[in-house]
Amino acid sequence: MRDVAIIGIGQVKVGEHWDKALKELATEAILGAIKDAQVERVDSLYIGNMLSGELTGQEHLGALVSDFAGLRGVEAVKIEAACGSGAAALRMGYVAVAGELSDFVVVAGVEKMTDRPGDVVTASLAMAADGDFEAENGLSFVALNALLMRRYMHEYGVHHEEFAPFAINAHRNAVNNPYAMFPFAVTADDFKKAKMIADPVNLLDSSPVCDGAAAVVLCPMDVARRLADHPVRIRASAIATDSIALHDRRDLLGLEGAALSAHKAYSQAGLGPQDMDLFEVHDAFTIMSALSLEAAGFAERGQGVRLGLDGEIGIDGRIPITTMGGLKARGHPVGATGVYQIAEVVTQLRGQAGKNQVPDARVGMAQNIGGSGATVITTILEAID
Amino acid sequence: MRDVAIIGIGQVKVGEHWDKALKELATEAILGAIKDAQVERVDSLYIGNMLSGELTGQEHLGALVSDFAGLRGVEAVKIEAACGSGAAALRMGYVAVAGELSDFVVVAGVEKMTDRPGDVVTASLAMAADGDFEAENGLSFVALNALLMRRYMHEYGVHHEEFAPFAINAHRNAVNNPYAMFPFAVTADDFKKAKMIADPVNLLDSSPVCDGAAAVVLCPMDVARRLADHPVRIRASAIATDSIALHDRRDLLGLEGAALSAHKAYSQAGLGPQDMDLFEVHDAFTIMSALSLEAAGFAERGQGVRLGLDGEIGIDGRIPITTMGGLKARGHPVGATGVYQIAEVVTQLRGQAGKNQVPDARVGMAQNIGGSGATVITTILEAID
Repeated sequence: MRDVAIIGIGQVKVGEHWDKALKELATEAILGAIKDAQVERVDSLYIGNMLSGELTGQEHLGALVSDFAGLRGVEAVKIEAACGSGAAALRMGYVAVAGELSDFVVVAGVEKMTDRPGDVVTASLAMAADGDFEAENGLSFVALNALLMRRYMHEYGVHHEEFAPFAINAHRNAVNNPYAMFPFAVTADDFKKAKMIADPVNLLDSSPVCDGAAAVVLCPMDVARRLADHPVRIRASAIATDSIALHDRRDLLGLEGAALSAHKAYSQAGLGPQDMDLFEVHDAFTIMSALSLEAAGFAERGQGVRLGLDGEIGIDGRIPITTMGGLKARGHPVGATGVYQIAEVVTQLRGQAGKNQVPDARVGMAQNIGGSGATVITTILEAID
Repeated sequence: MRDVAIIGIGQVKVGEHWDKALKELATEAILGAIKDAQVERVDSLYIGNMLSGELTGQEHLGALVSDFAGLRGVEAVKIEAACGSGAAALRMGYVAVAGELSDFVVVAGVEKMTDRPGDVVTASLAMAADGDFEAENGLSFVALNALLMRRYMHEYGVHHEEFAPFAINAHRNAVNNPYAMFPFAVTADDFKKAKMIADPVNLLDSSPVCDGAAAVVLCPMDVARRLADHPVRIRASAIATDSIALHDRRDLLGLEGAALSAHKAYSQAGLGPQDMDLFEVHDAFTIMSALSLEAAGFAERGQGVRLGLDGEIGIDGRIPITTMGGLKARGHPVGATGVYQIAEVVTQLRGQAGKNQVPDARVGMAQNIGGSGATVITTILEAID
């Protein structure tokens, strides 16, 4: 095994891209990352995507996108792990470079969700859940998160408005992210008055349906030191799973897949939560921020919301999260999200995050979650001088 | 990099499994492979599948299947490369073990196609083609192969009945395969009288819509030597791509992706076509057998059909193909096919193919094709004493 570096990133502004095809979004991100990395060779392309078949009638993205992006001939496949598809693709790229099977790998995440009616999108997203026991009974993805949130509030005596800091923080940070879908601030009052989606989940608890693509270029660290001014090292990349259905979980609020994934990543990196300068959480819903922070060891059980209430998740806080807007305000094009998170951590570790720069950021972590916690990918990145 | 072995295989009989869910089919194959391998530990599960979302309303197969198969917690993702998904998943497993990132990997291919009406299946399969320029214009997957076959007949002056040996050979071999969907012989006369599907492709040129699952267990070769009586070494595993659309190909009948994939595999293995004792071709349609044999170097351009006509593709021939029935007669549950091919080569190299045993088989090859040649995965396996 050898050390792996990220030497290029590319992002498309998240939004409703009715004028661009999925392959165009992916290509824009890929060419951006290749240009940023200044590489002339690509061996493999791993594409994270969940719903291209359901929402755009197109599978076989590996061949489709590699050709459109000018990479005809390369090894190319699609990786699917629901909303965790992006970081799962990164894991495959990491494995290929670390294991010396590929030298230059592009990992791209792409999703196009806004061309279809809302009910089709809702039904498609429910394919991340257990088809026989959850989706079949009408549980949408928001509803599953509503069940988790209600249980959390009940178990720990937490009030709904205590989740507001997650949304406020994400929106505040999105203001300075040129790739964010919602670059505007929201207030505690906005949160209180936000429209209910699935009680207790309201509009500001929820990430949007949207389109987007992000890409990164990986190569061996020794090559990166020659090619890049600011290579970022992948210290860890770990996937773990849990039951797909909520009713099968051994510990409903424990998010065991997230805990196992984080544990594996810490073990690979020889680091712990205390070493992280920032943490891109999978805030598809505010409840997921709390659960992810707890499972990854940043807070005790039931104390995740306290980090927000105590002002510890801001750029200058103890553990800055969603530093570029998160899923909530940058946007959540599902299969692309995991790669956006990685691109954002790289931006921070390069010291290029502008007004959102976490001071002296050296080590950052991202956690990308598929389904309601069934597949979790934890990635730890480190700045290299 | 270290050598990788296959130490277990599991297969479900291909057919119309209306009484079994996708996760049940996958689990049956996985548990079969684990039992065959006699391993007690699995680190990762890579699932090849194309159409679970479109045809069964279920994505996120990694988490779904790993839990159902008793593997909750392991790294698990779905790999999609159209009809090449199965061998693409094998490639990911190979990379993980060869690169020392995982020790025990299960690779499973699964597809469930028969629960939905034929028009839905046809439309879904067309997602392997270019959505904007092929599927959008009404070209089904059979139609694309009909275009290729017609062009081949025109260019090389080949008559349709000259493709018959491919179908006859596949059906003859399926008779002795307990996992085959169509274990019965067909004659040249049957081929001549077969119903037309998309001129010139007739019913006996075509593989069936069906359900199935197959799985293999990988581990490092040094471990395999201790655990297995007949470990099989993966000498090569290579993916290459071509344009997804036929009209964008530089060489319509050259199947450049297949040629590149085979070239990469030969180069990895330090072997050539003359070293192969058998070759599992991707005979989704008889034209694909001819093109694959030519692209992989077993015949000159336009001479692929001659191998069949000259009796060289049978068990005792110069290059036995579809030795257990191939896609035509074993069946073609699309995302599972690549893993069935691997299980069949392993069966041959173990000397366990019964009446279909290729004498003294030591090295075997499989070529799994996504779309009309856009993604091609070539695998070379070798028997180890």
